[in-house]
Amino acid sequence: MQTLENIPYDELQLGQRVSVERTVLEEDILLFAKLSGDVNPIHLDDAYASTTQFGERIAHGMLTAAFISAAFAKHLPGPGSIYRNQSLRFRAPVKIGDTLTITIEVIDKRDRNHMVTMSTIVTNQRGETIVTGEGSAIVPNEKIVIEAPDLPAIHIG
Amino acid sequence: MQTLENIPYDELQLGQRVSVERTVLEEDILLFAKLSGDVNPIHLDDAYASTTQFGERIAHGMLTAAFISAAFAKHLPGPGSIYRNQSLRFRAPVKIGDTLTITIEVIDKRDRNHMVTMSTIVTNQRGETIVTGEGSAIVPNEKIVIEAPDLPAIHIG
Repeated sequence: MQTLENIPYDELQLGQRVSVERTVLEEDILLFAKLSGDVNPIHLDDAYASTTQFGERIAHGMLTAAFISAAFAKHLPGPGSIYRNQSLRFRAPVKIGDTLTITIEVIDKRDRNHMVTMSTIVTNQRGETIVTGEGSAIVPNEKIVIEAPDLPAIHIG
Repeated sequence: MQTLENIPYDELQLGQRVSVERTVLEEDILLFAKLSGDVNPIHLDDAYASTTQFGERIAHGMLTAAFISAAFAKHLPGPGSIYRNQSLRFRAPVKIGDTLTITIEVIDKRDRNHMVTMSTIVTNQRGETIVTGEGSAIVPNEKIVIEAPDLPAIHIG
């Protein structure tokens, strides 16, 4: 079990930020292909990918968006938030073994409806920008501390 | 194996559209939780979810975005496109067993760089709007027909 804890609306401040690291494994690409249905060989086939402009397999762009949404949901603002909007600009590809840093920073608060807007920037281990964008969520003002259930094991192959 | 085929830039027309159906299973939510790391109990724990405003477990919002990206990559414009932007407005929750219809429609073409903009709308089996937004991609003008590899089996639990 892991404990998840939110940051209530009134405690959020402009400039507050969190960074989360995540290394992309081949397994992540296989799971995303299964889940989404996107089985394009650019993601799955080394020989095909070597003939493209990327030179090797790349991760699905929306996999990086999944990491952004998890950083929202687990860390800033955390559980209890309701995700409303996200913009994504895909700027550079992600390759197997890349370590991504997902950084979320509070850039606006609207008190009328407790809507918080955050910049969402993902970079890789070489400092290249992978994804930029903004997200917003409705954030409760109660403190929420909850236990997250363990997931069942998932086996590939 | 399945064959994937693109629609080259010059053949795309404003108003051209494709719709894809997808039913959301509990397995999809477990795989998304594993992949993203978002293990919030609103997605995973029936007892907890019953105490929230949603009354039952809901899917991660970004799971629906994964289906949008797959419709892009497989159908319109299909393989060879490079995803550049996506905006997402999350308007209603997705529950286990919901059947989503993902509709993509060409709404702009910019000849200078072969950028195609598409509206991306997801509805459920009750006609409720789940996600709205727009995406854009750079689309090649060559015809691409490729075989997609079969995925390894994935077992949960």
